Amino acid sequence: GAGRVTLVGGGPGEVDLLTLRGRRRLAEADVVVVDRLAPTAVLDELDPDVQVVDVGKTPDHHPVPQEEINRILVEHARAGRRVVRLKGGDSYVLGRGGEEVLACRAAGVEVEVVPGVTSAFAVPAAAGIPVTHRGLSRSVTVVSGHEDVDAATLARLDGTVVFLMGVTMLPRLCADLVAAGKPASTPVAIVENGWRPDQRTTRGTLGDIAATAARRGVRSPAVIVVGAVAGLAGLAGVADEEG
Amino acid sequence: GAGRVTLVGGGPGEVDLLTLRGRRRLAEADVVVVDRLAPTAVLDELDPDVQVVDVGKTPDHHPVPQEEINRILVEHARAGRRVVRLKGGDSYVLGRGGEEVLACRAAGVEVEVVPGVTSAFAVPAAAGIPVTHRGLSRSVTVVSGHEDVDAATLARLDGTVVFLMGVTMLPRLCADLVAAGKPASTPVAIVENGWRPDQRTTRGTLGDIAATAARRGVRSPAVIVVGAVAGLAGLAGVADEEG
Repeated sequence: GAGRVTLVGGGPGEVDLLTLRGRRRLAEADVVVVDRLAPTAVLDELDPDVQVVDVGKTPDHHPVPQEEINRILVEHARAGRRVVRLKGGDSYVLGRGGEEVLACRAAGVEVEVVPGVTSAFAVPAAAGIPVTHRGLSRSVTVVSGHEDVDAATLARLDGTVVFLMGVTMLPRLCADLVAAGKPASTPVAIVENGWRPDQRTTRGTLGDIAATAARRGVRSPAVIVVGAVAGLAGLAGVADEEG
Repeated sequence: GAGRVTLVGGGPGEVDLLTLRGRRRLAEADVVVVDRLAPTAVLDELDPDVQVVDVGKTPDHHPVPQEEINRILVEHARAGRRVVRLKGGDSYVLGRGGEEVLACRAAGVEVEVVPGVTSAFAVPAAAGIPVTHRGLSRSVTVVSGHEDVDAATLARLDGTVVFLMGVTMLPRLCADLVAAGKPASTPVAIVENGWRPDQRTTRGTLGDIAATAARRGVRSPAVIVVGAVAGLAGLAGVADEEG
C-alpha cells in the first residue's frame, strides 16, 4: 500500500486532549514516531504490532538530530507504512513540523498535518491563566526561551508573553526583560508538567521569580507566562497546586 | 443534580478537530451555548432533547452582550443543568473565556475549561503555513485585528504575527505596519473559512495584500498571517485553493 506520514499534534499531555482526528490516525498507524513531550499514555492503547520509535532521546541521552527524524519518517512511509509523527502540543508551534513536511514532500511522500492543542496556551489554562483577558491582555506572543530572544521588543509588548523551553534560561530572561524596561513588578507564572498529575505552578514577578524558581527546584518541562494575566486571581485551574 | 459549566474550545471548524474531552462534555450536556464560529456540525449529533442556545447573534443581528451570555450560563447551571459553552478555537485566545469563568465563580457555579485547537495556529496550518519555522520565525504573536493595535511594536517583531478578526481593518493594519518600519515586501497570507469546504487563501505582501483582498472580496471569518512563513512554498495545506 501507499505509505504516508501524518504529523499529529498530541496536545499538552492528557490523552483526551488529543483531537478526534489525531486519535483516529493513531489507531490506523503502523509506526508511531514519538517525542519526549508527546502524550505517551496513548501508546498503551496501540495494537501490540504497532512499531513505536522513540526519537525523544538517543541511548546516550542526546536529542536525535532533526535530519535523522526526517529520514526515519521517509523510510517507513516509503516501505508502505502509515506513519504517525506524534509530538506534544502542536507540530507547527516551535515543533519543527514544517521541516518534517518539507522532507516528506521532497521525498515524494504524502504528508498530512493534524493540528493539536498547543501547550503554549493550554498549559497556562491548566493553571487558571487565560493568555488573553479583557482589560489585561489583548495579545499573546509565544517564543522559545532557550534561544536568544529579542528582549527589547518583547519588553515593549503590552500583551502576554509565553516562553516555551525557557526554564534553564529563566534568570537571564527576566534580567533582560527588566533591563529592557519591563517593570520588575510584572507578574510571572511558571507551570511545570501542565495537565499531568504532578502539575505545579510557581508565581512571582519578573524581579523575584528566578530566585523563587531556584528555591522550589522548578524544572522543565514548564511553560513561563509573563504579563498581567499571570497575576489574575479567581480562575484557579484543574490542578492548581501552589506548592 | 449539581449544575456546572464547561467551556469547550471547539477548534477551527471541523468536528473531528474537537478534543476527545470536548466531545465527551458535549455528549453529556443538557444545554449547549454556541457562538457563530463554533463547529456547529457537532450540534447535529446531540440528543434531540438537548437545548441549544445560539448567542452568536441576536434576532436584530447584533452580538449578544457578554454580560448576557454570562447570565445565561449561570442561570442554566443554577437550575441543575450541565452546560457546555462551545466556541470556535480556544476559549482563552481572544475568546473572553476568562470573563465567563469569573462570572461562574462569582455565582458559585462549578466551571471547567477544556482547551481547544486555536484557529490562530490551525487555520494557517490548513493553508500549509507553519506559524514558526526554522530560519524564518522563532516566535508567533496573536492579536485581535479589530481593535487598535500597537503597530510600532508589532513591526519590530521578527517573528510571525497572526491577526484574528482583522479583515475589515486590513488596509489600515498594513499601512500602519509599513509606516512603523515593517518592509512592504513582508509576505502576508489571508485564510478565509479555514478547515471548511470553502477555505480560500489569498497571498501577497504588506504592500499589496489590501488591494488583492478587496479585488477578491475577502471576508471574515479569516485569519491574517504576516511574516516570512506566509511566503513559504512547498507546504500546501489541506484545501489550498489559491482562487
